[in-house]
Order: sequence, then structure tokens, then C-alpha cells
Amino acid sequence: MDHARVLAQVHDLVKDHIGRGRVADYIPALSRVDPGRFGLALATCDGEVHGVGDWRTPFSVQSVSKVFTLALVLARDGDTIWRRVGREPSGNPFNSLVQLEYENGIPRNPFVNAGALVVTDRLLTLTGDSSGELRSFLREASGNPAVDVDTEVAASEEAHSHRNAALAHFMAGYGNIDNPVQDLLHHYVRQCSLTMNCADLALAAGFLARHGLLADGSRLISRSEAKRINAVMLTCGTYDEAGEFAYRVGLPGKSGVGGGILAVIPGRCTLCVWSPGLDAKGNSVAGVAALDAFTSLTGWSVF
Amino acid sequence: MDHARVLAQVHDLVKDHIGRGRVADYIPALSRVDPGRFGLALATCDGEVHGVGDWRTPFSVQSVSKVFTLALVLARDGDTIWRRVGREPSGNPFNSLVQLEYENGIPRNPFVNAGALVVTDRLLTLTGDSSGELRSFLREASGNPAVDVDTEVAASEEAHSHRNAALAHFMAGYGNIDNPVQDLLHHYVRQCSLTMNCADLALAAGFLARHGLLADGSRLISRSEAKRINAVMLTCGTYDEAGEFAYRVGLPGKSGVGGGILAVIPGRCTLCVWSPGLDAKGNSVAGVAALDAFTSLTGWSVF
Amino acid sequence: MDHARVLAQVHDLVKDHIGRGRVADYIPALSRVDPGRFGLALATCDGEVHGVGDWRTPFSVQSVSKVFTLALVLARDGDTIWRRVGREPSGNPFNSLVQLEYENGIPRNPFVNAGALVVTDRLLTLTGDSSGELRSFLREASGNPAVDVDTEVAASEEAHSHRNAALAHFMAGYGNIDNPVQDLLHHYVRQCSLTMNCADLALAAGFLARHGLLADGSRLISRSEAKRINAVMLTCGTYDEAGEFAYRVGLPGKSGVGGGILAVIPGRCTLCVWSPGLDAKGNSVAGVAALDAFTSLTGWSVF
Amino acid sequence: MDHARVLAQVHDLVKDHIGRGRVADYIPALSRVDPGRFGLALATCDGEVHGVGDWRTPFSVQSVSKVFTLALVLARDGDTIWRRVGREPSGNPFNSLVQLEYENGIPRNPFVNAGALVVTDRLLTLTGDSSGELRSFLREASGNPAVDVDTEVAASEEAHSHRNAALAHFMAGYGNIDNPVQDLLHHYVRQCSLTMNCADLALAAGFLARHGLLADGSRLISRSEAKRINAVMLTCGTYDEAGEFAYRVGLPGKSGVGGGILAVIPGRCTLCVWSPGLDAKGNSVAGVAALDAFTSLTGWSVF
Repeated sequence: MDHARVLAQVHDLVKDHIGRGRVADYIPALSRVDPGRFGLALATCDGEVHGVGDWRTPFSVQSVSKVFTLALVLARDGDTIWRRVGREPSGNPFNSLVQLEYENGIPRNPFVNAGALVVTDRLLTLTGDSSGELRSFLREASGNPAVDVDTEVAASEEAHSHRNAALAHFMAGYGNIDNPVQDLLHHYVRQCSLTMNCADLALAAGFLARHGLLADGSRLISRSEAKRINAVMLTCGTYDEAGEFAYRVGLPGKSGVGGGILAVIPGRCTLCVWSPGLDAKGNSVAGVAALDAFTSLTGWSVF
Repeated sequence: MDHARVLAQVHDLVKDHIGRGRVADYIPALSRVDPGRFGLALATCDGEVHGVGDWRTPFSVQSVSKVFTLALVLARDGDTIWRRVGREPSGNPFNSLVQLEYENGIPRNPFVNAGALVVTDRLLTLTGDSSGELRSFLREASGNPAVDVDTEVAASEEAHSHRNAALAHFMAGYGNIDNPVQDLLHHYVRQCSLTMNCADLALAAGFLARHGLLADGSRLISRSEAKRINAVMLTCGTYDEAGEFAYRVGLPGKSGVGGGILAVIPGRCTLCVWSPGLDAKGNSVAGVAALDAFTSLTGWSVF
Repeated sequence: MDHARVLAQVHDLVKDHIGRGRVADYIPALSRVDPGRFGLALATCDGEVHGVGDWRTPFSVQSVSKVFTLALVLARDGDTIWRRVGREPSGNPFNSLVQLEYENGIPRNPFVNAGALVVTDRLLTLTGDSSGELRSFLREASGNPAVDVDTEVAASEEAHSHRNAALAHFMAGYGNIDNPVQDLLHHYVRQCSLTMNCADLALAAGFLARHGLLADGSRLISRSEAKRINAVMLTCGTYDEAGEFAYRVGLPGKSGVGGGILAVIPGRCTLCVWSPGLDAKGNSVAGVAALDAFTSLTGWSVF
Repeated sequence: MDHARVLAQVHDLVKDHIGRGRVADYIPALSRVDPGRFGLALATCDGEVHGVGDWRTPFSVQSVSKVFTLALVLARDGDTIWRRVGREPSGNPFNSLVQLEYENGIPRNPFVNAGALVVTDRLLTLTGDSSGELRSFLREASGNPAVDVDTEVAASEEAHSHRNAALAHFMAGYGNIDNPVQDLLHHYVRQCSLTMNCADLALAAGFLARHGLLADGSRLISRSEAKRINAVMLTCGTYDEAGEFAYRVGLPGKSGVGGGILAVIPGRCTLCVWSPGLDAKGNSVAGVAALDAFTSLTGWSVF
């Protein structure tokens, strides 16, 4: 396949969607992003990268980071994390306390905020520095040593973290958080505030297309664990729009309110798209449209 | 691939799971089924069928019927049904009223009972006889003119339908049911009480593997609608275990409390497995194990 | 106390509130009532009656009937009803299914619709004709043989009873309804559709002010049961406004969407006020204002 | 009335209940209390005090303090607090986050933990030292300068405050908390950790029986505000048992997990009972029995 030509076609097809939707505005640092940006990168399993648009422009990864913290915990700890977090879709907005209360402090899956806090808590216990660990991994796996925390975004998020603090304290009350809540939030916020571009993210996620193997052929996680992450991405990766995303795109995907979406075509490649305008559920409007166009053009959907 | 050999291998691998779990006992007619039964059939896109075990023994299709009523409504009515029912996973037990109340009478998806009632209501309005219509379709698509309603099961279910009556009246209160509740329940129960064997179901669902085409090459639903049904099956087809099923099996699947599970491998084939012992979430224990073994042996999982 | 003078003063004080609010419009028969009507009656423990305004004009008693069906069940059956219905405030709108689901089919109290259905179900089992029994009681206790069901209202309500049917079927699914749902709804609707005037209701409720004794000195319910009903009225009698009513009026009270409110001053008298304009919670605007004014003038509040 | 004789009779009647129930054990400092203790004090409106049993033994006031913080805020601020907290019963356990989420961060009433945190937040803003202010008030109103915080209990509670921290952060996320959560919790915990005896509490609450007047005749809160507090106590003062308490006791009452219950008979007297064994809802078993016996003996119930 001529990847470059397909990406160019996709870019062309989604032009009308770029700029639509609403840029995340719950913190000032995110709200200042230009809604007209759009980037798309594809990384093949053997490490080739292609891109169009602003694919080299760094953006705030936000919840896309949850895929990688989960992988790092599985890599170190195997299946034990599943005692503390479920693997089922939530059917509720991503930060809801209601379901957490009815299920006694066990979050539904690792991609709702509560679940990602539990995963981060475990990574913090295992490493003593979860955000540092994640940054190191992402620098190496993307090959970009400039990957770093945007400290302005991090500071801004930390100042607006009441809801996450509530989730963490609530789960701590059920004994499902091991670290001090303040430390946990500090690392969680730093992880969400990492800045990467589309190429970085597509390359860093390559192990999900390679059934658990890193670019150098060494194993990060088992084949089964890679399958697990992909399954959770497909069923839970795009907030309360996972069903719609499964239909339109038909690929495992994880979105973030920074406007990024990471998608995996197992055995073939990874994709990362970025455009800051979000739909009502918090997913990038042009990003979903681009992945939709890509799978239509290539026929690489799952269904 | 030597289908017969693979099916025999699968049968061998799941022997220990057969008989495990609990047979559905909310109605007497279902509770009398022998928990030691197991059947598995595979139908290729060109209509070849293979099977092992009790693949020719009829069983109660129950919620597996929901796939076909949805397809029949899409075939007649196109996308309009999605104004009355959502497409997202539910995150609650399959017959919960709670989510329905918070979402003003719009069920989360067509495979929770409330959603299937809405779909049946529409088919009833469109045809005047939804259960008759479904039976005709299934007879023709399976090539088995003996497909029929088990009237003892239907009578028993109709006598135990308070929860479904509550759902229907509740939605009717929101204006989301058009037919008299009693008529609706009558047809809904008859649809669930259809008796078919694994070969029948695998053949009848062939259009989902053929991107919407029936065995004779005529189109039942559009390519896009077939993709939609498969996506809804993957994310919502196995009650509150869809995430686990997506991981273990990695295929669009729809289960029923009669112990049947229908699965689709788009472009290749359909599978139907049956074994009456259910896990805590209501899915066949040996059935899930068999589909898991099948995708492991063939590598035909989505992830 | 010069009752007539106090009632006249109250009438004068609430003039500005009469006509405010919204007349119940979920059925046509109720929506046609003139919002400018206002009546207030007081019945002393020895059977004297005073009134102002439209105190002799019949209106639809609606949920005020729930007080009497509860009393009739307690009279026949003692405390056993409390195994099937709770006695605590609900904290949810009066017809919510959510709480019912979380509490496994046991309604919170006898004045939410679900609870009143359970009470009616019991009265129907005990008597074979609960609405007939209630009518007989109300005719005798009010001394007005013309008390009867408004069949137009009843027919209209029966045609709009999907929500109550859902509640009844839902509880039946938990084994908490003994009679066929259709029969139950028929009697329930007839009970709500009884037409009485302020004097009738004040007189009929006299046993609650007389600690369980009827006007002729015979005992309907025990002193303790009368206390129980009054306590439930104070904490649960005015939908999701019980706290506000307790403060403003400070008396046991039960309202209905027909615009009536019954209030009890134990040991002294009963009051019934009627004015059809309802506030957002479903209580009569001028009715609450009148009872507020009455307790302010007399100092007969509980607090 | 011979108060001493009535109290002695009550003591006698409840002997079998003393020691029943479960002492609060969520913090070690509370769990060490002897379950066999029982005290009861009555303070008349003119400041006479009577008591039986351990009525001079200090205990942890816990949630009984919520009555006084509410009064202090109303005294300084009038009705404005009701914009931030409701006045309706909750129908959910006292520390539930669910209702808070569905009602956008506005707690149902000032006696659930969330509501008491909002009231404390306001008192902290108004005074700069809410727990100090409360202590000063209680010392003066009880005439006991030894009233003080039990620092061991306070430290223990502060170390176990995840659930309250979750509530506070959650409301802060909705903009309904003004002070830093840590400061707020510090004061809240100190208020709950105040140690007083039955006589102290009965005397300190005298203003609720005197329609807002302190013992020296000066006004703390308006007559209407006193009525409001009493109404909230009756409908919401005993967790999810308010309906049962209203029936059995029939008085405004506020309980705490330390085993204390404060009750008010407007115009007559206040009562404070203490016995550490709690029922399943968190109210003192012997305490409720004693107030029940008292109202039965005196006939001073509301109903």
C-alpha cells in the first residue's frame, strides 16, 4: 500500500471536519490550542512512519497516556491489576462516582479516570516514580528524547483536580489506593500532561500492533496481554462513545481531551491522529472522521 | 483449513467445561435441559456447514434472536430505529430499569431487553406479525422449514414476564412503544422461544459474514448496516461480560440464556455454539470456552 | 377558638396565592379544573365542621386517598404490611423506579406510588374489592353518601397508567404483588379518582386526630397505628417537599395532584384545603400557603 | 411533672436495651468505649437540669455537633446557606456520593455528611475558625468551660477521613466549597471530636426549645430559624431511620455515632441520651428506646 497517498486522501476527505467541535476548556492551558490543527501519522510494524498535516506538532496526550501506564503495569506485574480494576464498558460519563459507589470502589475499566488512577497507583508503588517511568518509556519507544511534561498544563490541571481527588479519596476509603492521594494525583497529572506528536505516539504504541513486542524485538508484554489492551481499547477507549467508534472506525482506539486518538491495527500498524475540536462525548471530531475515512479506504476495519 | 478437524480439536479442548455453570431456571421449561449437551457448528460464506457434538439438536434461541429482529428492522426501515434505541454498552445487568430511567426511556442498545422490546415493537408495526416474520426469515435463511416456536417455553415465559412488562410499560410512558404492551410481549416471547440447532443459526446469520448479502446473493441489509450489527455484537452482545468476551474470543458474538452463542468472522464464516451451563453473567461456560479455543487455534480473532 | 374567624383570616391571607402554579395536566379530565378555586375545611375531634371558600365543591382526591387505604389495611391486618413496604422518606420523585430496583422491589413508604400500589394490592386481597371498600368507608366516615368515583377521571387515568403498570409489574417480578396487575391498577385508579369535598375529607380523617377512634367512638386502628400514619404523613406525605412542608406547616399532611391537602393536628382537629394550582413538586401552592397561615395564626404547629 | 421520677422510670424501662447494638469501630478511639454505659439528661426551658445514669460522663458528640454548626451559621448569615444545601430527607445512607452527583454538588440536607461539610465551610469562611467558634459557643451555652476537643479522637478521625475528603473535593469540583479541603476537614473533624456529657448537650440546645432564645434571654436565631432546625431534625436527624424515629419518638432529634441523641420538645425542654451501642442505621439502640419510653410516659410526642 502507498501509505503516503492514503494519508493524503484521508486528509483531503476530512478537511470539512477540521475546526469543528469544541476545544477542551476546563483548564486555560488546553483552551488556547488552535482548533484548526490536524495531524495524522501511521507507523508500520517494522518502524516506518508516514504522516500528513501537523503530525510533527506536539500536543497534550491526556488520556491517551492511560494505554501506556496500563501496559507498563502489566509488563511488571502481570494480571494482578485486574483484582483492582474491571474490564467492562462503563455506560456512564468517564468520571462518574455513581458506578464506583455501587461497585464498592472497583472501577469498571482502566480507561475511566478512576481506573487509570488505580493503575497509576500501582505503577507508583512498583517504581516509586510512575510519571518518570512513563516518560522514560515513551522517550525510548518513540525514539524522541524530547518527550516531556508540559509543566504549565500540569500545574493548571493540578489546580483543577477536585474531581480526581474525590475519586482517589473515595477509592482509598475502600482500600483500593495504596499511595497518599496527593502523590498519586501529582503523578497522574504529570502523565496526562506529557506532550508528544502523532509520530511519537504511533511509534510508542507499536508493541500493540506487534502482539507485545517492542521495536527491537524484545517483549514488553505477552501476546495475551496485548490482545487484552486492544480489547479494552475497542470496548472502553472512547468514553461513552465506544459503541459508535467501534462501528464507524472498527479498531481499538484511545482518545484524549487534548484531541489525540491512538488506534491499532493488530499485525499491521498503529495510527495517531490529532485535531483539538471535540464532540459532546470528548472525542476529536476530525480525528474520528479521519480514522473512519482511513478504514473505509483501506478496508482494514475489524468488522 | 480443515474445518472438521479444527472443530474436533475444539470439542476436545473444552470437554472439561461442558456441564459446568448453571442452567437457566427462571422458567421450568428451560431448566429441564440436560447440562451435559454441547454442539458447535461453522457455516462458511459459501454455505458449507460443519459441526461437532450436538450441533443438530434444537435448543431455545432466547436472546440470540435479537440479532435477527434487529437485522429485519434495519432491512425494512434503515437507520430510523436508532432514534429510539442507542448503540452503546450498558454497564448494567441486561434488564436494568435504572439506566432506562436516567435516559428517559431510550434503551442503551438493541441487545438489552428494553432495546430488543423497542426493536420488536418496530417490527410489529412494520409487519403486523413480528414473530411470524422472524420465523419465516429464519426458516428460509437456515433452509430448515422445521424452525418453530416452542409453545411450552413461550407459555412459560409469558407467565413469567413481569420484568419485561415493566420495561415495556415504562418505555410506553415515555412514548417509546407504539403497540399495546400485551401484544408486544406476546411477539417478543415467541421470538425468544424459537427452537433451532447450531447449524440453523450459523447458516441464518451468514449475511453478517457476507457484509449484508443473503446466501442467494441478494442483499438483506447494506454493508454499513452489517458492520453496525457486528460492532454492536462485539461491544454489547454478551450482557455485562462484553469486555471479557472481546478479550477472550475477540469476535462479534451474541449469547442467549438457552446456552447458545452466535459469533461472526466477517468475510469468513459464522459459528454457533450451544451448551446450557451458564456463568454468573448469563453466558454459556463451555460456549465461551469453545469460541476462545477456536480463535486461539485459528488465529482468527480481531485483536 | 373562633374557628370561622380564623378560617376567614386564612382565606384572606392567601388570596394572592390562589390561581398560582400549574393545574395537573397529565390527563385531560384533571386539566379542565378552574385554577381559581380555593376551599378550606376544619373538622374538630367532636365532629364540628367549619369552612371557607369552595369547601363544599367536590374535587379529585388523587393521592390523598393513600392515607385511607393504608388505614384500612392496618385496621384489618395490623403491622404485617410493613414487611412489604418501608416507612422512610424517599429522596426521589414520587414515581421513581430507581430506588425500587436498588431495594429489590420494596417501596420506601406507602405514599410513593409503588408503596400505595402494594397497600392497595393487600386491601384487594383482604376484601376482594379495595376501591369499593374504600368508597364505603369514606361515605360512612364523611357522612356523605354521594362520595363516588369520577368515572371519566378513572377512565382517563387508566388509559395513562403506563408508569404505574411498570411499577406494579416490576414489583410483581420481585414477588411483592399478589393480584393480577390489571385488576390492581383498576382499583388503584378508582381510588385516586374518588371525588370528595374539603368537609368530606376533613371529617373522614377524623380518626387520625382522635388517636384511632371513629366519630362514634369505635376504634378503627390502634393509637400506635394512628401515630404511625401521622409520622409517615409528616415525613413522606408531600412528595419530595416533605422537609419544606414540615418546616412551613409543621403538621402531618398528605397532598394529591388534584390540589387537595389533608392535615392533622392530633388531639385537636383535621384540616382539608383545596386549590388546583400545583408547585413544581406537585403540591397545591395556595393549599400549602393556607396551612402555613393557619399554623402561624394558631401556633398549632408541631415545632 | 416530677422530672427525676420520670427519668428513673425511663432508665428502668430500657435496662434490657443497654449494651445491645454495636459500638462504632471505624476508628480505634471510639471503639474502646464501654457499651454498657447509659445516661439521660433533661433541661427545662428555664435551665433546670435533671439526669439519670451516666449523664455526667463525657462522650464524643460526633454528628450531634451538626445541629450547632447549623445554628451558628444561621445566626450569622440568615437564610443564605439554603442556596448551598437542601432541606429534604435523603433516602440514602448518610455519606452517599450518588445523590450528590445527581444533584450537582448540592447536598440534600445539613445533616448528611456532605451537607454538614458545606455548613462548616461557611462557618469557617465567616469566622476563620469554625471549630474554635463552635467550642466557645458550646462552653458558654452549656455553662461547662471544660468542653473540649478529644485530640486523640480527632487525630484518629483525620487519619480515616477519605470518604469525607471525597465528598469535599467532589463538591469543590462543583464550586460548593470555598476553603481548602484540608482546612475544612481539620475543622469538621475537630467539631465531631468534641467531648460533652448529656447535661452539657441538653443545656446547650436549650435555644431550640426556647424558639431561638439563649438562656439569658438574648436571641441566637429567629423563631422561624429555630422551627426550621427542629423540622430538619425530625425529618433528617437520624440518618436513614428518620421515619422510624418520627414514629417511635415523635420528636425532633439528632443522633451521632458516639451514641448520643439530642431531642427537642419545643416550648418545654430538651433531652440528651447517651448509650454507645448502635443499631444497623447508626443510632443508639438504648437511646432510641429511652426517648420512646419518655414520650410514652409523658405523652409529649408530636403525633
